[in-house]
Amino acid sequence: MENFVFYNPVKILFGKGQIANIAAEIPADAKILITYGGGSIKTNGVYDQVKSALAGRNVVEFGGIEPNPHLETLLKAVEIVRNEGIDFLLAVGGGSVLDGTKFIAAAVPFVGDPWDILAKNAPVKAAVPFGTVLTLPATGSEMNTNSVITKWETQEKLPFSSPLVFPRFSVLDPETTFSLPVRQISNGIVDAYVHVMEQYLTYPVNAPLQDRMAESILKTLIEEGPKTLANPQDYDARANVMWSATLALNGLIGAGVPQDWATHMIGHELTALHGLDHAQTLAIVLPSTLTIKRDRKWQKLLQYAQRVWGIVDGSEEARVTEAIAKTRNFFESVGVQTRLSDYGVGLDTIPVIIERFEKRGSVALGEYKDINSQIVEQILTLSA
Amino acid sequence: MENFVFYNPVKILFGKGQIANIAAEIPADAKILITYGGGSIKTNGVYDQVKSALAGRNVVEFGGIEPNPHLETLLKAVEIVRNEGIDFLLAVGGGSVLDGTKFIAAAVPFVGDPWDILAKNAPVKAAVPFGTVLTLPATGSEMNTNSVITKWETQEKLPFSSPLVFPRFSVLDPETTFSLPVRQISNGIVDAYVHVMEQYLTYPVNAPLQDRMAESILKTLIEEGPKTLANPQDYDARANVMWSATLALNGLIGAGVPQDWATHMIGHELTALHGLDHAQTLAIVLPSTLTIKRDRKWQKLLQYAQRVWGIVDGSEEARVTEAIAKTRNFFESVGVQTRLSDYGVGLDTIPVIIERFEKRGSVALGEYKDINSQIVEQILTLSA
Repeated sequence: MENFVFYNPVKILFGKGQIANIAAEIPADAKILITYGGGSIKTNGVYDQVKSALAGRNVVEFGGIEPNPHLETLLKAVEIVRNEGIDFLLAVGGGSVLDGTKFIAAAVPFVGDPWDILAKNAPVKAAVPFGTVLTLPATGSEMNTNSVITKWETQEKLPFSSPLVFPRFSVLDPETTFSLPVRQISNGIVDAYVHVMEQYLTYPVNAPLQDRMAESILKTLIEEGPKTLANPQDYDARANVMWSATLALNGLIGAGVPQDWATHMIGHELTALHGLDHAQTLAIVLPSTLTIKRDRKWQKLLQYAQRVWGIVDGSEEARVTEAIAKTRNFFESVGVQTRLSDYGVGLDTIPVIIERFEKRGSVALGEYKDINSQIVEQILTLSA
Repeated sequence: MENFVFYNPVKILFGKGQIANIAAEIPADAKILITYGGGSIKTNGVYDQVKSALAGRNVVEFGGIEPNPHLETLLKAVEIVRNEGIDFLLAVGGGSVLDGTKFIAAAVPFVGDPWDILAKNAPVKAAVPFGTVLTLPATGSEMNTNSVITKWETQEKLPFSSPLVFPRFSVLDPETTFSLPVRQISNGIVDAYVHVMEQYLTYPVNAPLQDRMAESILKTLIEEGPKTLANPQDYDARANVMWSATLALNGLIGAGVPQDWATHMIGHELTALHGLDHAQTLAIVLPSTLTIKRDRKWQKLLQYAQRVWGIVDGSEEARVTEAIAKTRNFFESVGVQTRLSDYGVGLDTIPVIIERFEKRGSVALGEYKDINSQIVEQILTLSA
């Protein structure tokens, strides 16, 4: 096992009715900005639950945070927070609203151009405290310090992270997900699954507990994911997928083991250039990454084949191939296609993506930092 | 899945050499009290590492915290903290030192008799901040708010818990465990195993991720535990057992599921009356509790039999019986005996224990609160 530091102070309030308890988690004298997205919270009852829980509190609202939240939108919220003396943020929505709110929290006290936090890795030295009410299980943003923001002007999509943007609390009520569109549920299952794979499917370091916990999440997603699609009101299935998505990226399964993340970095480019959903890009890139890097991931691919998919017969070669095929089939079975062509994206995007990577510095992705421009090209070519 | 709140802000510094990093985790101007036990840290190098890491800092020491830490001992430390203006505690040792330090932390600002925190559930309203350097994987105290203290005068052993006694940080360096006596390693494996069982072996509530994570810890202990006994210098085995013991009782696997804890409550009485090691009492009581309560634990016993022990053949009755037998055999295989008679304890202790339970109120243990005095008697009789 590798050395690690694990720290995650997010308080999770999980289960039906938990929105009613948020007032106790927010300082009584706080001036609160509620941030949200396209307004679905106003039709599914979540907005009313939040307003009811915060009755009598000093509340301002900022809606309209879009998927792949835009710098340009978020900067408007930053101005409101600064001008109105807001001292607590409450993000109500999915990963995009949460990620966007993390950026707002960090940008408000930032001196200079806040985009530098992402483009130049400028250090975050302070942040406005915030909580979240999660309505879409997928990104894990509710229990981590990660945020991905898109600059619309330049079509750049970049991540940042800081321990100062841990949510103070996150409410996870599975009932808030009952009314989600199928596409978002499908995406969430794939997103959580690939988060696990980025931390699990590398090389062995004798960390059997981390391995088994990762496999636990994968197996739960495989079992419970289809149930959430078959019956949107299946509370337990929704709850199990929701908790799986949170634990997929809260630092636990990645503690003490190598991590990959090449699929995410390549996928971000597909979203930035072609507007694909984040999970769609992961479903496209992961099977190709596993195939191209199979030699160096061999031991873990065999373990994954056996423990997650029950594949024990045939040659090692056959088992590895079958495990990758099962992965692709699972994504497609929950409704997310896995080929660039399924989304009308041609191979002419490849040189554009590679140029964008190279412009930011040397290309060295994956757990061995050995995925260079040429291998990115191979991965994307295989994803045609 | 049941509703739950999960919150665990302990920062874990895991791996070899991590003691060197503690100074950065303690406020620079703090006056620190280092608490420890019988002095093994002075022979195994841990004391020197801690002193070296805190060179130039304002440090006072308090040694001599015994196994099953005594109220009477701890109150002496409380006086030192109060009189010397200590504002940070650093517990260096195993679960007893950590539990004792939690009590010291809570007792210092407590108004009245601090034993009331345990005997009368008096609320903890403040606590001195503290960190820990764990040298014995077993209790999970390094990442939770639990503490068990013994009042020597009356031979009472009682637990308390408060969110104010989360350690600020805990260092887990597997190398600090290399020199542990075999008995403590054996006890630690059993202690962690039973912690998992108390949260897992109840009844199903459709929480497959929690179930699988619990099974992950059990299987890791079964695989890695014997390795730590066979070769005390096996770093990875020690690391895997250490991390398993921490995750066994940090709130994660118990979130959203019913919990038992009858075995612990009965076991505490055996320690208080006969001085048995905590893990010895668990090894004695758990197999009997599972046997006496098998009807109400049936579904989970069958799942445990299959997933943890690979028992799939035979009648349900046979599988349940075999799983309980395997559990007992595992404890004995790692060196912890499982019968009262192995420790020279006779059945005449049973009425004494029941009288002590009844004196504190009605007896209602277990996940159904249906373990009354009569069933405690059955469990202990079966443990003869």
